[in-house]
Amino acid sequence: MLKFTISKEELEKKIAVAADAVGSRTVDPILQCLLFSYEDNSLKIYSADMQTFVISKLNVSEIEGSGKFAVDAKLLEEIVKNLENEQVLFEYDTGKLNLKSGKSSFNLSTYSDADKFPQIDIEDSGIKFELETSILSEMIDRVLFCASTESTMRALNGVYWEVKGNYLRLVASDGYRLALTEQKVDIDTDIDFILSLKSMKELDNLIKQTDEPILTVKFDHKKMSVTAGDIAVIMRIVEEVFPDYRRVLPKAFKTRIVFNKNEFLEALKRTMIISKRGSEKVQLQIIEDILVLSSQSQEYGKVKEEISVEKEGEDLKINFNPKFLNEAVKKVEEDEVVFNFVDDLSPMQINSKDVNEYLYIVLPVRA
Amino acid sequence: MLKFTISKEELEKKIAVAADAVGSRTVDPILQCLLFSYEDNSLKIYSADMQTFVISKLNVSEIEGSGKFAVDAKLLEEIVKNLENEQVLFEYDTGKLNLKSGKSSFNLSTYSDADKFPQIDIEDSGIKFELETSILSEMIDRVLFCASTESTMRALNGVYWEVKGNYLRLVASDGYRLALTEQKVDIDTDIDFILSLKSMKELDNLIKQTDEPILTVKFDHKKMSVTAGDIAVIMRIVEEVFPDYRRVLPKAFKTRIVFNKNEFLEALKRTMIISKRGSEKVQLQIIEDILVLSSQSQEYGKVKEEISVEKEGEDLKINFNPKFLNEAVKKVEEDEVVFNFVDDLSPMQINSKDVNEYLYIVLPVRA
Repeated sequence: MLKFTISKEELEKKIAVAADAVGSRTVDPILQCLLFSYEDNSLKIYSADMQTFVISKLNVSEIEGSGKFAVDAKLLEEIVKNLENEQVLFEYDTGKLNLKSGKSSFNLSTYSDADKFPQIDIEDSGIKFELETSILSEMIDRVLFCASTESTMRALNGVYWEVKGNYLRLVASDGYRLALTEQKVDIDTDIDFILSLKSMKELDNLIKQTDEPILTVKFDHKKMSVTAGDIAVIMRIVEEVFPDYRRVLPKAFKTRIVFNKNEFLEALKRTMIISKRGSEKVQLQIIEDILVLSSQSQEYGKVKEEISVEKEGEDLKINFNPKFLNEAVKKVEEDEVVFNFVDDLSPMQINSKDVNEYLYIVLPVRA
Repeated sequence: MLKFTISKEELEKKIAVAADAVGSRTVDPILQCLLFSYEDNSLKIYSADMQTFVISKLNVSEIEGSGKFAVDAKLLEEIVKNLENEQVLFEYDTGKLNLKSGKSSFNLSTYSDADKFPQIDIEDSGIKFELETSILSEMIDRVLFCASTESTMRALNGVYWEVKGNYLRLVASDGYRLALTEQKVDIDTDIDFILSLKSMKELDNLIKQTDEPILTVKFDHKKMSVTAGDIAVIMRIVEEVFPDYRRVLPKAFKTRIVFNKNEFLEALKRTMIISKRGSEKVQLQIIEDILVLSSQSQEYGKVKEEISVEKEGEDLKINFNPKFLNEAVKKVEEDEVVFNFVDDLSPMQINSKDVNEYLYIVLPVRA
């Protein structure tokens, strides 16, 4: 028997982070549950998908009894979000969970054997450091969209972490484009590893929802954990080798243009109206201080847009997948964007004019 | 050759109404086009789906030449919405449409034979009357959601219009529920007909977007047209007989309850968390001045909610599809809602406590 009262607000906050780690199409139904467990005088909820684990301490009042139960995560999340009363009473006994709040009463089924819920721990003897929440949040934003969404490409279906010479670097690539961001950090060790896209999204979710300014990171060469206040995410690292990103970074540029971000994005948006009905290609043509964007569709017609640029180097004609340009340029946080071209067949580098903390590499497509 | 300049705002407004009448999966590709036609010194755009036709006059400046062209509606809508410049220049010549605005230039394909675009007209000798836009808008809102969405049920896949004894009545039903609304009008004739759901949605779309306070309606026993300023919708009536709605309206009630709308909707929302995972049924049980809502799911559990009601008549237990209760009660515009029950197997009537202009009938389901 386990009985406790908790505020709707506290429960909602903790479930919001935990429920996202729950697998939606997992083989084992217990992974679709949240585990509530009262141990060492503290009530915790656990969620897990074998790669990513979330553990949260719950602040409760009037707790009685002991034990644990596992209940469907999405069901509980939906119920709690819609309750009217500020306080929720949980009463668990022999397989049945009663939930009372105001004039609402739910009698929920629980998973038959809560002991089957997977457990994970991280070694306390490993590497430990701290990161500012806002800095890690920004770094993840800059690279996450470039990671491959194909789960069969295990090395690219995630984000590469590299700590080296007091720099933290995050790199993501899907084979057609690459995102790199770095920050000086006070970490006195060299490590590198890959975290899966799913783990990264769960970590991002925790970071976006926490109010804690500082994160505690632990790493034991098999797993990494990030703790924000009373919520921790533990992620298994992906046992793969990330391709050497340094070999992709262009060294010498033939042409460099600087232009206004929004002007480019507006022109590109109109170009994409035709490209998405046709070749899925946009041609960039640099003529003096004009950048011409064009695209065509055999069925629907043609489009041509012009924007002014500052140019260094030679005129150039090159084709890209417009979606990749759009996503990368949108991520540039400043008003002025730089495109650096090697030639019409080599990867192009996109960066901000003034900030050196991040860059994007995009492969051209054939005309 | 046809050449004109038009403001982006004017074009966007007219296309927004016209493009919705375009069929998305029609057999004839010309029905996915907008027809631009310069005739009698006025430029008009036409859209059509064989049931519903929209004709709009365009205010243009600097028009030259003559003729007509048909261009893909969704493509043009998307282009116009994304243009940056306030003025758009159209130049049509021998199958090619050039569209220029600021530094944007589009060269669009047009439909090969614009003369194939279907034409429709309404007889000027028919019935003609006026309606206040706001009143018709409200009436459509009250009934449209109850119309059947199954196009094979031709009589129910639309809205029944009845003008009789100086009342305009709109009725919609999908066989499980019915919505009825009426308003006193100054129309001195008796007519009744069905308009298809597609036509009604297009009419609703016109009404929601116009600023005109008064609509002109024409009816020639085959078609109905509604004109708002310089936009007209012409709708073919559906040649079917609508079931006699008067036979469905309950006469004598055994139980009547009055309750607060939002309290009921909140309780129902929580009940639906379980019902949608189970039987898709909600049980209403009236005991004295309490209404108990309950539902169950074999897999997930049970829910029970209570709200206070004012009751007249006997206690009662009855089951409904919660979606139908939710949609009908949401449409009640006042705070107090009335449920009128004949018995546990007969249709139940939902209405506002104070306003008599509309009501809903919902069939119960078996326990």
